[in-house]
Amino acid sequence: MGCRAGLRGHQGSKEEEQLTSIVETGRLRIDGQRLLDRLSALSRVGGIAGTTGSSRLAFTDADRAGRRLVTGWMEDLGLQLSVDGIGNVVGLWLPPGIDPAAPPVMTGSHIDTVGTGGRYDGNLGVLAGLEVIETLAAEGVTPARPLAVAFFSNEEGSRFQPDMMGSLVYVGGMALEEAHAVEGIDGATVGAELARIGGRGPSPCPGPAPHRFVELHIEQGPVLEEAGVGLGVVEGVQGISWTEVVVEGQSNHAGTTPMGLRRDAGYVAAEITTFVRRLALEFGHPQVATVGAIDLHPNLINVVAATAKLTVDLRNTDNDRLLEAERQLARELDAVADREGVSITTRTLTRFDPVVFDPEVVDLVEATAHRLGITTMRLPSGAGHDAQMLARVCPTAMVFTPSENGISHNPAEHTDPADLEAGANVLLHTMLALAAAD
Amino acid sequence: MGCRAGLRGHQGSKEEEQLTSIVETGRLRIDGQRLLDRLSALSRVGGIAGTTGSSRLAFTDADRAGRRLVTGWMEDLGLQLSVDGIGNVVGLWLPPGIDPAAPPVMTGSHIDTVGTGGRYDGNLGVLAGLEVIETLAAEGVTPARPLAVAFFSNEEGSRFQPDMMGSLVYVGGMALEEAHAVEGIDGATVGAELARIGGRGPSPCPGPAPHRFVELHIEQGPVLEEAGVGLGVVEGVQGISWTEVVVEGQSNHAGTTPMGLRRDAGYVAAEITTFVRRLALEFGHPQVATVGAIDLHPNLINVVAATAKLTVDLRNTDNDRLLEAERQLARELDAVADREGVSITTRTLTRFDPVVFDPEVVDLVEATAHRLGITTMRLPSGAGHDAQMLARVCPTAMVFTPSENGISHNPAEHTDPADLEAGANVLLHTMLALAAAD
Repeated sequence: MGCRAGLRGHQGSKEEEQLTSIVETGRLRIDGQRLLDRLSALSRVGGIAGTTGSSRLAFTDADRAGRRLVTGWMEDLGLQLSVDGIGNVVGLWLPPGIDPAAPPVMTGSHIDTVGTGGRYDGNLGVLAGLEVIETLAAEGVTPARPLAVAFFSNEEGSRFQPDMMGSLVYVGGMALEEAHAVEGIDGATVGAELARIGGRGPSPCPGPAPHRFVELHIEQGPVLEEAGVGLGVVEGVQGISWTEVVVEGQSNHAGTTPMGLRRDAGYVAAEITTFVRRLALEFGHPQVATVGAIDLHPNLINVVAATAKLTVDLRNTDNDRLLEAERQLARELDAVADREGVSITTRTLTRFDPVVFDPEVVDLVEATAHRLGITTMRLPSGAGHDAQMLARVCPTAMVFTPSENGISHNPAEHTDPADLEAGANVLLHTMLALAAAD
Repeated sequence: MGCRAGLRGHQGSKEEEQLTSIVETGRLRIDGQRLLDRLSALSRVGGIAGTTGSSRLAFTDADRAGRRLVTGWMEDLGLQLSVDGIGNVVGLWLPPGIDPAAPPVMTGSHIDTVGTGGRYDGNLGVLAGLEVIETLAAEGVTPARPLAVAFFSNEEGSRFQPDMMGSLVYVGGMALEEAHAVEGIDGATVGAELARIGGRGPSPCPGPAPHRFVELHIEQGPVLEEAGVGLGVVEGVQGISWTEVVVEGQSNHAGTTPMGLRRDAGYVAAEITTFVRRLALEFGHPQVATVGAIDLHPNLINVVAATAKLTVDLRNTDNDRLLEAERQLARELDAVADREGVSITTRTLTRFDPVVFDPEVVDLVEATAHRLGITTMRLPSGAGHDAQMLARVCPTAMVFTPSENGISHNPAEHTDPADLEAGANVLLHTMLALAAAD
């Protein structure tokens, strides 16, 4: 029945066995419908009425319900679960005859969502991991090492910052106590909310380094679709710089205050927003820059705004360019404060350097896709992902599937089922090959 | 004891009497401390903790409490109260020996506030009116006609639009039923809220036209203070154009969407905001233009905004210029929608033509101030006022007192007590003179 896939065989007698097994396992394919069914079931947890999207902000009741559903599936597959102090869940697959002490080839992602999330972001990477294991188990294929599927807490950072908090803590980039003390947009703390939903486990932080890590994720951008390819080979992750900007001007009557005597925080927010766009265009691709949130006070039609709070999101794959963008923003804030007679204060919310993935794992993803007849292109990730944290502790790469119209963080997020299936198959064969490698 | 002020005397025997009475009444002064005490007492109704300001949005419980306090004062002065279907309250002073059928010289303003209101805006005009009558009554001076003090409902328009609703209904510019059907920012209707607070009365709308109307108000701008004069003689009111602009773009991931593929509603809101400033500067004084409110959705740091709702407030004393500003705004909205691939819809929230006050009443205010030794300057009002509605039905003008630092619609709103007193004294003698005129 079973065969051992990709066993390293140096004896002549084993080589033929290995070739056979590679040919055999090369025909293995995940069950696309089962993957879609799990994605659909999970999307209904915290489902947004009238859409196929979900709202499962980290450590909310909806997040707890999502965790229960996915850990249930992990248990059904016989995975050995470990839950750590920040709520990261790792499901380890140890089929008989495998060395339980060998570091596993790990895949995974997250199951928390933004407030207006789609059904693929994060969930795909976790549920495709389950699909990989279920497929191998059903076919009686035993990899050369343990495999693991993880979901990391609070990847989105919509409620508690920074984003990618769970994987950051997993790799030792943030102390558990520090993470627990983080206060969210609703005033609750990570520690209290984690305790409330029963999400905290006994496994230590940082967690054990995997042998290799590979994450499947939707692109969340339009580049693959525009290029007409089936799969993205992700070479790295853009550096991310998030700044909160607070402008303090002077509230005043909109009819009676001559233009020259205003200290209009709303206008200054608009100037910063248009500056940020110009900066991105001047820097050129792959620099992106976004003001996604603006809050004016008192935010009334006939009152010059007294204060404005806005966020600036800068990203670039080149850290020197990102640093330069940050410097230019800082200079502009000084200049506009001076011109407009307002005071401006800033606070760094998140700052991650760009990440370069392991070239061998990247090459393997690409070769695997081509072996399966799937067209690819190489690209950086514009979004932050758990894989960039795991890259600190083991060779890592990512696989992207196309996003229809590039839409993400939106219930309308969609990826063609054939692309989802192709991505999961590339994940399957990449993991098998990684398990076989040294 | 008493004397009749400003009686038109054509008989020789009366002329001397009139001269005497003018000289006598010329020495009359209102009681500044009593005025301050009433302003202070009213400010504590809906008072904003830690400030001297108030929050009495129209037709709220706080508004009801303010109405009760002021109508109580009116009753104490023996005024004859009438309350109409929109909650406007007119207190008529009919001292013995006066023709009760003669249209009164009316003063007044409003006692509703913005959410973060000061203690002078509106309140000063009403309470100074009470002060005029109390001063005359205490001195036994009987004017040549009835005097009246009114407060008009919902002048601010912060909760229910349009602003100046009460005075607009009073002069027949809006049907009572239409006003009652207006839905506020909290979903309540004017009619239901008015009924809830017991604010509706039996007097008909439109109400009877006064003989003359003159309103005392704080400037709410910095012009008088900058000029160093004690009083503003208001020649007219700027036309007001309020537009709500809704931008519909595409929500998307802030990291993965290249700049060229975005349809960013937040950026478009910023472009409109900076355009509006440029427009005002190009048009020059007295054009003002403000974006006071911006609401993005989903308003998240890492999501390109899908929609933006913002307001544009344009004002000019010259209606042709105001119309041209509106046309240029409309053209720019079309252009930016086209450039940025978003859809933009607009809705007119308020549109009032500029108002020119009655030259004779304006001259009288100025002459009266000079007679009292108060320095003046002529200026237009940048804010809308109830007086501009009354100007539709009778000769009307306004008197401004300076606003410290031009601050208004803000709990920090302040006017020097000496300026308040000077303004109320000019109101007193202007009303006496208007009562004496044909």
